[in-house]
Amino acid sequence: MGLGGSWDTTPYGTADIEQAEEAVAAALDSGITVFDHADIYRHGKAEAVFGEVLARAPGLRERIVVQTKCGIRLADGDRPGMYDLRGDTIVRRVEESLARLRTDVIDVLLLHRPDPLADPEDVARALMSLHRQGLVRAFGVSNMSAAQIALLQAHLDVPLVADQLEMSLRSRDWLESGVLVNTPQAASVGFPHGTVEHCLAHGIRLQAWGALAQGRFTGRQETAAEHATARRVAALAEAKGTTPETILLWWLQRHPARIAPVVGSARPDRIRACADAARREPDLTHEEWYGLWLSARGTALP
Amino acid sequence: MGLGGSWDTTPYGTADIEQAEEAVAAALDSGITVFDHADIYRHGKAEAVFGEVLARAPGLRERIVVQTKCGIRLADGDRPGMYDLRGDTIVRRVEESLARLRTDVIDVLLLHRPDPLADPEDVARALMSLHRQGLVRAFGVSNMSAAQIALLQAHLDVPLVADQLEMSLRSRDWLESGVLVNTPQAASVGFPHGTVEHCLAHGIRLQAWGALAQGRFTGRQETAAEHATARRVAALAEAKGTTPETILLWWLQRHPARIAPVVGSARPDRIRACADAARREPDLTHEEWYGLWLSARGTALP
Amino acid sequence: MGLGGSWDTTPYGTADIEQAEEAVAAALDSGITVFDHADIYRHGKAEAVFGEVLARAPGLRERIVVQTKCGIRLADGDRPGMYDLRGDTIVRRVEESLARLRTDVIDVLLLHRPDPLADPEDVARALMSLHRQGLVRAFGVSNMSAAQIALLQAHLDVPLVADQLEMSLRSRDWLESGVLVNTPQAASVGFPHGTVEHCLAHGIRLQAWGALAQGRFTGRQETAAEHATARRVAALAEAKGTTPETILLWWLQRHPARIAPVVGSARPDRIRACADAARREPDLTHEEWYGLWLSARGTALP
Repeated sequence: MGLGGSWDTTPYGTADIEQAEEAVAAALDSGITVFDHADIYRHGKAEAVFGEVLARAPGLRERIVVQTKCGIRLADGDRPGMYDLRGDTIVRRVEESLARLRTDVIDVLLLHRPDPLADPEDVARALMSLHRQGLVRAFGVSNMSAAQIALLQAHLDVPLVADQLEMSLRSRDWLESGVLVNTPQAASVGFPHGTVEHCLAHGIRLQAWGALAQGRFTGRQETAAEHATARRVAALAEAKGTTPETILLWWLQRHPARIAPVVGSARPDRIRACADAARREPDLTHEEWYGLWLSARGTALP
Repeated sequence: MGLGGSWDTTPYGTADIEQAEEAVAAALDSGITVFDHADIYRHGKAEAVFGEVLARAPGLRERIVVQTKCGIRLADGDRPGMYDLRGDTIVRRVEESLARLRTDVIDVLLLHRPDPLADPEDVARALMSLHRQGLVRAFGVSNMSAAQIALLQAHLDVPLVADQLEMSLRSRDWLESGVLVNTPQAASVGFPHGTVEHCLAHGIRLQAWGALAQGRFTGRQETAAEHATARRVAALAEAKGTTPETILLWWLQRHPARIAPVVGSARPDRIRACADAARREPDLTHEEWYGLWLSARGTALP
Repeated sequence: MGLGGSWDTTPYGTADIEQAEEAVAAALDSGITVFDHADIYRHGKAEAVFGEVLARAPGLRERIVVQTKCGIRLADGDRPGMYDLRGDTIVRRVEESLARLRTDVIDVLLLHRPDPLADPEDVARALMSLHRQGLVRAFGVSNMSAAQIALLQAHLDVPLVADQLEMSLRSRDWLESGVLVNTPQAASVGFPHGTVEHCLAHGIRLQAWGALAQGRFTGRQETAAEHATARRVAALAEAKGTTPETILLWWLQRHPARIAPVVGSARPDRIRACADAARREPDLTHEEWYGLWLSARGTALP
């Protein structure tokens, strides 16, 4: 369970820092101690503002887990966006992130996207060097498949600990891929089948971005299935004495892979709405879990 | 080669038992000694009627292989259908199947569908317990992929022996997936590629449900390709001195994975039509096998 | 880097041999020493003409790598095309290729297409026998997936060294499959994900057929993206002092899998246009490589 996303802090002044402090306070109040960054969020400002928060709050750094990512180069004028996981680039990006975050060490560094040009040996050399220097404690990936993880792992002396994917009651390819085996409908799902199983088997924690499903079950529902599911989510929330947001996160956490949701909001009220996902065990029965799935799915299982 | 399917026995009285006895007699006459059940077939009545047949025929149980499945919970009124492979549920379902089947042991238990909520450790614990108690001799799966099989196998001390998939001259995704590698058409096939290879490499027997292709090459043909293929099937049957049904089953058995067809019918005449698939070696040349495939396919290979 | 394709030599007379000699001379001049054949190219005439070239040029055989393929049976009148990797067939085809090529040994034999009827043990027995007799030095495959390669490898005592796939700036499923992980667009790509990673991890060389993209970026462009990409290719060629064809091949060679392009042309001018791909290190920056990809892609990365 972590707090992440783009951190809505455009210009970066005192107001931004105070807003971030409120977000962090709301997170800590809610039992959320993992903070998920990326070098590209707000073009580095998200990390910088967070670094200011850390600098103002002695002792905070030791209480939290700081995760960040590198590997994407954003579009810039005529230069299109691309990926870059060259060893030298990784090291440079990490050094920049450390400076912005005003910390000595990143707890978890994720490789943000697969760069087809990256040589796994070169990547591994950079990661092991960062690890030996004590600059990064653990490594993971994002938006990658079992095959990509295994190739990188074969060159690493430390285990990859996380794969962050878009996963929610709405973005369900990771789940549908498993039950559509041996059906014609499987062709409509492009998820690299086996990735969930690989992570389960190797203790690689699945992290979910977009875990709140873009609000499509908590106010922004559009389709009939979304409306029906939102009603079901609300009813469960009331019955369990929690929020609809928590129901959506529990739905992920209840999976045997113990999916760790990443909440992409800096609004204290949204963060607090997720508190029970950090503080309570996911309280959904087998039948309630399937009920949510089938409602969002809109059609029966094969 | 087995006999399975839904066993057309709605109310369950003496007539049903006698009908089942005829089916079993036809199967044994035809050299078929594997009987494929599931707890859900006819909501348990299929197993119960079969149990009556076993009770009336001393010595029969020792001559046959009894296979059944658990893991699906059928829709019931407002409750939608779902999957359930919790350890406790598996054990309870097996105990119920044993009671209905009036036998001390199930030869092969298949997990009917993948339940995403199932924790592989919990599943494995239940299976190993059933095995240690002598209630189930061997385990397999149904409608599962290589990745799902491997994840479960990693927690089991006994080898999974079977994967039952829909496979026929009509349902060919398992086959097309292999020859469409490196072609744009591959996107139209969602079969989890590698599953056939995994089963071949690990001695996991592929069982085929729907092996007779819903009759689409033996009387119920609809498309031009089906009509042409039905003529080819009939001509081969005549030339080989057997039935069209046998040709369809030989086509599966001829594959190096030695696919074991499951015939889903309780009609003695349909069962007897498959006898040569149990009694004779598949008698199709390389060219005849491809001829059937290409005819059903309707287009040339890449 | 190799020379291959169908060798445009219909009737096979002195003119064909001389034409082939010119192609071989152009290749050797260009630093190309791998010659890629198949038993079916020009129904065997491609190999036969090449055999004549070898016979006329003492010492040539020792300077080059001869690769050929078997496993496809072409359509012939009413008989449709099919695949045939039975052990006996493989041995017979290799003996025929050796006779046509007028050589004692094939350096690399590729299995041209996956034959679903092929028993991996039977295939492996044939390959090992050819290897023990010194008739074939090394084996590879073509148009096959990681799963198919691994299944065959499990039965072989020598490592498979190559997988020849269609790969180019135009045929990019092998590449898109990697970056579309975790996106809905992944369903439009049927490439067996993990094959590139498997080859990288096991030292299996990827060879690219169709590497020049059917001329779609060097004169035969049709779509807007192809026109834009052709301009970019031409500009890079001029800037680097080489040909557009070389830019297309460098784009493949620059990948960490060190993809080996196979140039499918017997025209000396086309062959010479590729010389820098054999003689120079691929001279494309990270950004230039992505620029070509994104231009051919026509849409931004996820």
